[in-house]
Amino acid sequence: MTDEQPRPWRRIATRLIWQSQWYDLRQDVVRIHTGATITYTYQDHPGAVMVVPVTPDGRVVMLRQYRYLLAAWSWEAPAGGVHPGETASAAAARELAEETGYAAGALVPLGGYYPSKSVSNERLDLFLATGVTPLPAVPAHEPTELLRVHLRPLAEAVAMVHGGEITDAQTALALLLAAHRLGSAAAGG
Amino acid sequence: MTDEQPRPWRRIATRLIWQSQWYDLRQDVVRIHTGATITYTYQDHPGAVMVVPVTPDGRVVMLRQYRYLLAAWSWEAPAGGVHPGETASAAAARELAEETGYAAGALVPLGGYYPSKSVSNERLDLFLATGVTPLPAVPAHEPTELLRVHLRPLAEAVAMVHGGEITDAQTALALLLAAHRLGSAAAGG
Repeated sequence: MTDEQPRPWRRIATRLIWQSQWYDLRQDVVRIHTGATITYTYQDHPGAVMVVPVTPDGRVVMLRQYRYLLAAWSWEAPAGGVHPGETASAAAARELAEETGYAAGALVPLGGYYPSKSVSNERLDLFLATGVTPLPAVPAHEPTELLRVHLRPLAEAVAMVHGGEITDAQTALALLLAAHRLGSAAAGG
Repeated sequence: MTDEQPRPWRRIATRLIWQSQWYDLRQDVVRIHTGATITYTYQDHPGAVMVVPVTPDGRVVMLRQYRYLLAAWSWEAPAGGVHPGETASAAAARELAEETGYAAGALVPLGGYYPSKSVSNERLDLFLATGVTPLPAVPAHEPTELLRVHLRPLAEAVAMVHGGEITDAQTALALLLAAHRLGSAAAGG
């Protein structure tokens, strides 16, 4: 694909529309490939991480979390935003501890993904955490978080994805990638 | 989990903050489980669909699309918003035709997912399209779309996910679910 220009669209101007706790809503004025000028509104996001924590006996530390926007309880892997100056792997270790009260033996990167590429520049870094063990202290959740920790065998968690029981797209992807990575490792691949 | 209240948070009021072509930005006043009142800002989204189109000879019809927010070209499955009054499967057939110029023999639902559950109520319905064949007319893309159609063997597309070449989280998930479904069908499962 030699005809792919590396950056066919260029930002001419930007303005802040709204500032939330999690991201800025921005509107850019953009010169596109046709020469026309358009406006493009998006979430300017600092980035996020998600971790699939697996214990030495092959169970996944999962969260059952109430989600206001779904008006439902959701099965999820621990996740959260990257703080200023923090690396993705440091954020993954911190969120794992804060949300589940577990610590990782090792963090294996599973890649960087864009959950919502047309309306947000959020990059989500996925990790597999192996050798996961409980910390001495029970985590104190934010008062606006309503969640509980559950352990599920990895094969059962994957079956929950294929059975439609896990509807958080990020968790579903992270679990399938983690299972593939562990399967490849088990097969020596 | 008998102690899960079905709807522990309740909306008290809502206001419109911003209206975009794709969604409304809203802020709700919410009474949460502790009795406290908070504000919650989110995208009020009409829903979206994504299709993994597979030809009779086992190739996936994929898009190579420029994404301004990534400042990069992205490998993606055809996708788009659900129009008012449209079913998810009708939207899937329409987006497939409009974006790729192909039509499906059959559409197999792969489930409903939430790509960004903490900041958007967007539901993404995934589909596998089988028996996909070219339409007589070449699609006319929106002037603000910069994309090209490519066919890739399904196994190669899945390898692109595990190799980190596909960074759109929705496409990565849809491809893994479609490959699993086709594998199960091939195995009679």
